[in-house]
Amino acid sequence: VLCESPTYLGAVNAMRAYGVAFVDVTTDDDGMLPDDLAKKLASCRRPKVIYVIPDFQNPAGRCWSTERRVALLEVAARHDVVVLEDCPYRDLRFEGEQRPSLKSLDKREQVVFLGTFSKIFCPGLRLGWVAAPQALLDKYVLVKQGVDLHTSSLNQMVLASYLEHHDIDANVAALRTLYRARRDAMVSALEAAKIEGAHFTRPAGGLFSWLELPERINARDLLVECLERNLAFVPGGAFFPNGGHENTVRLNFSNMPEERIKEGVRRLAEAIRSMSSSKRHP
Amino acid sequence: VLCESPTYLGAVNAMRAYGVAFVDVTTDDDGMLPDDLAKKLASCRRPKVIYVIPDFQNPAGRCWSTERRVALLEVAARHDVVVLEDCPYRDLRFEGEQRPSLKSLDKREQVVFLGTFSKIFCPGLRLGWVAAPQALLDKYVLVKQGVDLHTSSLNQMVLASYLEHHDIDANVAALRTLYRARRDAMVSALEAAKIEGAHFTRPAGGLFSWLELPERINARDLLVECLERNLAFVPGGAFFPNGGHENTVRLNFSNMPEERIKEGVRRLAEAIRSMSSSKRHP
Repeated sequence: VLCESPTYLGAVNAMRAYGVAFVDVTTDDDGMLPDDLAKKLASCRRPKVIYVIPDFQNPAGRCWSTERRVALLEVAARHDVVVLEDCPYRDLRFEGEQRPSLKSLDKREQVVFLGTFSKIFCPGLRLGWVAAPQALLDKYVLVKQGVDLHTSSLNQMVLASYLEHHDIDANVAALRTLYRARRDAMVSALEAAKIEGAHFTRPAGGLFSWLELPERINARDLLVECLERNLAFVPGGAFFPNGGHENTVRLNFSNMPEERIKEGVRRLAEAIRSMSSSKRHP
Repeated sequence: VLCESPTYLGAVNAMRAYGVAFVDVTTDDDGMLPDDLAKKLASCRRPKVIYVIPDFQNPAGRCWSTERRVALLEVAARHDVVVLEDCPYRDLRFEGEQRPSLKSLDKREQVVFLGTFSKIFCPGLRLGWVAAPQALLDKYVLVKQGVDLHTSSLNQMVLASYLEHHDIDANVAALRTLYRARRDAMVSALEAAKIEGAHFTRPAGGLFSWLELPERINARDLLVECLERNLAFVPGGAFFPNGGHENTVRLNFSNMPEERIKEGVRRLAEAIRSMSSSKRHP
């Protein structure tokens, strides 16, 4: 499986159980670098899937440029490899224009698109959808049956009734407004905190900002410091299937009101400063 | 994985995805034969799990004797192998005394017990439970997270509320009464049908009777004949992971009212007779 760097931890764990090896492709704020993808596809023994989250990726919050989306499909077309487009955050755009989904650009029936109601309705229902070429869908249904027999019929009825009688677009619009304000609160707080040597993203959608700290700071140690301050985050290293990048942090802004985000960033900055000073003066 | 012969198709499909090989142990109406289990455990390269459904097995409806349960654990104790006790039908006993679960006999922390609300409350909720040694449970939680992140929280709340405000034992008692009458209807109908060379079981619980036909009758061909008569069943061959036994049929009696069971068995017997006569006089 070829994946972004970083990539979504949950997908890595789900695929790892089947004995998958991960090849991480160099990725910048616009998406995978096509040349590096081509090089790695060519040197892979049996590339099966290119796994990507082009819209407001978990964890880094990045959104691929249209150019890179087109380039990905061109490179993939030269190999017999499926593109798995994981797309939970696409509708949670705060500003700017939507970029085309890979699936909408797919002329060769290469793309499997994964959608979910978890981020736009309710994660507790465990409901999503797949858009894929029929031949792959037939296999998918067979394999899914092996995993879970079937998806909860009660939950499918609950969702069907909601979609029939309520306005999910209005719900998504309300989420966008809420999360935009929380994104702003987090970015402002990070700017105000002036953490030495830190870089962080200002994502145009989704749930996450990505924080890179000076290399001397290990985010797993930082988490221990933060838990003492009743603050938690996911260390970024967990999102690199082949390790490294232990100085990175995934910051979620969707779950907390603005005041608590502000206080959380204050405690985070304090914990970083306390680690930095204790390292300098042991 | 060592399993009964036949064994539950759904478990086979779930495990096969992980590259498992199945070794089927000779099984009679009282359960696995301990000597055959011991022999096959000894000749297996890396036996990992003994997978069994001791109570009213899907598909064969058999219920292990207490003696065989004790013997299984004794044989398993001589090898470093987990016993996976899949137990969906235990509470659906129509007559006679409960036998001890393997888990209740487990003195060496070898047994993983799987329960489910699918057969005693509602299959659409996809809820069950696991009783296992803590070290295995810790691993189980980790691995389950990789598969599904988490079980539907809404459904867990629905069930918790049901268990708090209603009487699940009364529900199970009602199911027992209903299914017992349907089991009786099916067994009577099968007796009345006098299918030449057929053997069928009269299970003391669960959802299934098991029908063995003369070897010349392939149940997959029979299914085609039956579908023309608007009748369906699961061919028994599907429950043998290593193939064979194509002359067997799993008959479900829980899902249909007595009159339709009677009519279904009538059509089944008719389809078998039509196949037998066309084979004899082609």
